[in-house]
Amino acid sequence: MRPLPARAAGSAARAERACGSSSFRDDLAAASEWVAAYLEGSGERPVVAAVAPGELAALLPASPPEAAEPFAAVLADLDALIAPALTHWNHPRFFAYFANTGSEPGILAELLTAALNVNAMAWVTSPAATELELVVVDWLAQLLGLPRGLHGHIEDTASTSTLAALAAARTLRPGGVVYASEQAHFSIEKAARILGLELRRLPVDAEFRMLPEVALADATALVATVGTTSSTSVDPVPELAQRCAEAGVWLHVDAAYAGAAAVCPELRWCLAGVEHADSIVVNPHKWLFTPMDCSVVWTRRPEAFRAAFAAHGDYLGATEGAVDLRDYGPALGRRFRALKLWTVLRCYGREGLQALIREHVRLAARFEAWVRAEPGWEIAAPRHFSTVCFRHLEADNDELARAASASGRIFVATTRLAGVSVIRLAIGNAFTREEDVEVAWEVLRACAR
Amino acid sequence: MRPLPARAAGSAARAERACGSSSFRDDLAAASEWVAAYLEGSGERPVVAAVAPGELAALLPASPPEAAEPFAAVLADLDALIAPALTHWNHPRFFAYFANTGSEPGILAELLTAALNVNAMAWVTSPAATELELVVVDWLAQLLGLPRGLHGHIEDTASTSTLAALAAARTLRPGGVVYASEQAHFSIEKAARILGLELRRLPVDAEFRMLPEVALADATALVATVGTTSSTSVDPVPELAQRCAEAGVWLHVDAAYAGAAAVCPELRWCLAGVEHADSIVVNPHKWLFTPMDCSVVWTRRPEAFRAAFAAHGDYLGATEGAVDLRDYGPALGRRFRALKLWTVLRCYGREGLQALIREHVRLAARFEAWVRAEPGWEIAAPRHFSTVCFRHLEADNDELARAASASGRIFVATTRLAGVSVIRLAIGNAFTREEDVEVAWEVLRACAR
Repeated sequence: MRPLPARAAGSAARAERACGSSSFRDDLAAASEWVAAYLEGSGERPVVAAVAPGELAALLPASPPEAAEPFAAVLADLDALIAPALTHWNHPRFFAYFANTGSEPGILAELLTAALNVNAMAWVTSPAATELELVVVDWLAQLLGLPRGLHGHIEDTASTSTLAALAAARTLRPGGVVYASEQAHFSIEKAARILGLELRRLPVDAEFRMLPEVALADATALVATVGTTSSTSVDPVPELAQRCAEAGVWLHVDAAYAGAAAVCPELRWCLAGVEHADSIVVNPHKWLFTPMDCSVVWTRRPEAFRAAFAAHGDYLGATEGAVDLRDYGPALGRRFRALKLWTVLRCYGREGLQALIREHVRLAARFEAWVRAEPGWEIAAPRHFSTVCFRHLEADNDELARAASASGRIFVATTRLAGVSVIRLAIGNAFTREEDVEVAWEVLRACAR
Repeated sequence: MRPLPARAAGSAARAERACGSSSFRDDLAAASEWVAAYLEGSGERPVVAAVAPGELAALLPASPPEAAEPFAAVLADLDALIAPALTHWNHPRFFAYFANTGSEPGILAELLTAALNVNAMAWVTSPAATELELVVVDWLAQLLGLPRGLHGHIEDTASTSTLAALAAARTLRPGGVVYASEQAHFSIEKAARILGLELRRLPVDAEFRMLPEVALADATALVATVGTTSSTSVDPVPELAQRCAEAGVWLHVDAAYAGAAAVCPELRWCLAGVEHADSIVVNPHKWLFTPMDCSVVWTRRPEAFRAAFAAHGDYLGATEGAVDLRDYGPALGRRFRALKLWTVLRCYGREGLQALIREHVRLAARFEAWVRAEPGWEIAAPRHFSTVCFRHLEADNDELARAASASGRIFVATTRLAGVSVIRLAIGNAFTREEDVEVAWEVLRACAR
């Protein structure tokens, strides 16, 4: 590192910078080696950190350094202090929450993105970042079989995408109620609270799908979920879309996780009816092998998003005939996230994405079959995608999941379905192999014994 | 790239992955070389892309590829298509908007972050990411001389930090007015609109500082700005703090850009009074050499942030005695941004940060002196930090800035101050040298002739 600027003008300063970068090349090589070795060896690490709250903080210096430290010192502390206190999301046996992968193409693209450091807030500030974003979200719409002609853009997370969609809906019907099922994600509750809208949660059927008998007279929006977080249930979007159309109510579809499945034609049933949605969110940082964060929201009412978010300062330029993406969501500053999504879609291709998603569904089906075949265990919800909800009939399932995760060999989370605790095995990391799923079943059975 | 998963179990699968990573090592080396060469040569690129809206989009394939492509193809297109259509923020002569740098330590850390792919949403999902975030924002608070004991966390941008702060304020005084000066950033208007609060803009004095004579009876919050976007004026925070205290109104301080200056004791005057603020935001992705995005918000009322944002789902774990950072802002998913801030603070150290900030202030002062000495030009606002507002007395200054930026040699933006157009030269990229500032003045004078 070379924090001190050269005061000399002319070519001397340029030469000094070039000299500085040769040490940057060494640091980049060291970081690259760390990353390659990390991916190769992540399966050998404990998935879940065995630390107590405050343990790492106590090991870190209480104050920042006065003088510059070499990057090698940071890398050494990453190994000695940080990595052992991390729960490893990019681990082949991370089965908690939902699928996620810091894939090789995604990692490479994040490296490039940081060097470019572009802010995609407006066309004029970043023509390529804006246009690549529009093109790549259209590519993804094609891969998922979404209707043509939607306007799409990238937000950080589904929380923000849903906040943006509900803010857009509010411009058409202010002050109303947001309806969602009792299984809908709590980020909808957060978004409604931020927007000052009331959230009403609707009952679900025995398979955790929203009951379509809903009166929408006072509604601002209805949020249907394709792949609920607890059980991956799929709300009846076609019926809900019809009711929304009749009542003139905004339909937002939260397909943050399961929407990715639509890359495979045989799983595209899950997006039936979304052609009538006003907005839909799918997170490439979940089951599409893109590093955190990358959430795509499409709409057929871009003017409502602009009504919610367009604002202007004299210090910002505008370009006739160009799209300024800051006008479609809450944040002004926007990372160049399109670069990683573009890199991932190209380096996997449609075929590569389909192969991985099919493999994850196959592994989930195998795990489901093992559970069904084992006395004392049951499947707790229909398995539609790559997430299996199951439980031991006699054990304390929360305790069981905790013990299994404390082994360091797997990480599984729990939820509650129909009043009982249920373990979720979420498959979807690109590095997960069948042996990893076998280990999960072995650990869980051992803990139950 | 190796999208197809191995179906074989056991050590064969592991070996196949290792073999795949050796090609990943080659790709990483190629991406690293691209990045190092980009930083070395960025000064030779045109800062501003000479493209028309739609030009890049027309060059990109209309549909995603069916089969996987090698990363080398992506890198080739980055060179051939994307980079020429980019406006280069990480360029030594990018003088538009505010300072920003994708610094070497920041780039290295983003590479590591993508590989770890940790989600810092809760302590249990990422103990090290949560604790490093709390420690590193405390380090930054120390560097800036903020009061001890504040609760800090990282959001993506100041737009979100301010949204979070105003949402917290709303839990104490719902339904009121947000006051800010007519020079305050438009993100405050966006945040107020999202939250359903009314924004009232207050007049400023001749130096663009908010007039402290404000009645706050109906207020939810007052936003004071330290370093306004147009002119970098500093609102009278001590007086405003006193009025807020008397009226029981939340004081939020937007120091997104200029707060960084407080790393230098001689510039710390700009944060006078913030010890009485309820919340304050400073963006390390502006003048603290951290890649997009990284905005730190501190508060002495963390319980109000939690009241605004805490929510729970059965599918999320909680840990006794631990802080879950998702409870302090709108998004659930959170990148491991602390890693880059930690790396930047260590690799520069207090001394390195001070040296860079002092050098940028020195360069801005030089530029200011050149303008003052040149007939036909004037300084349009007091220069407090590293941003100079100036204008040609006879030229169309918007046209002048456009022509200067169209040269490809510099990028400057304009704003309006006291009813006239003004050019802003914002210094703050870590790669900027005195010769770059000389080029800016040379280009601007040539365009004016």
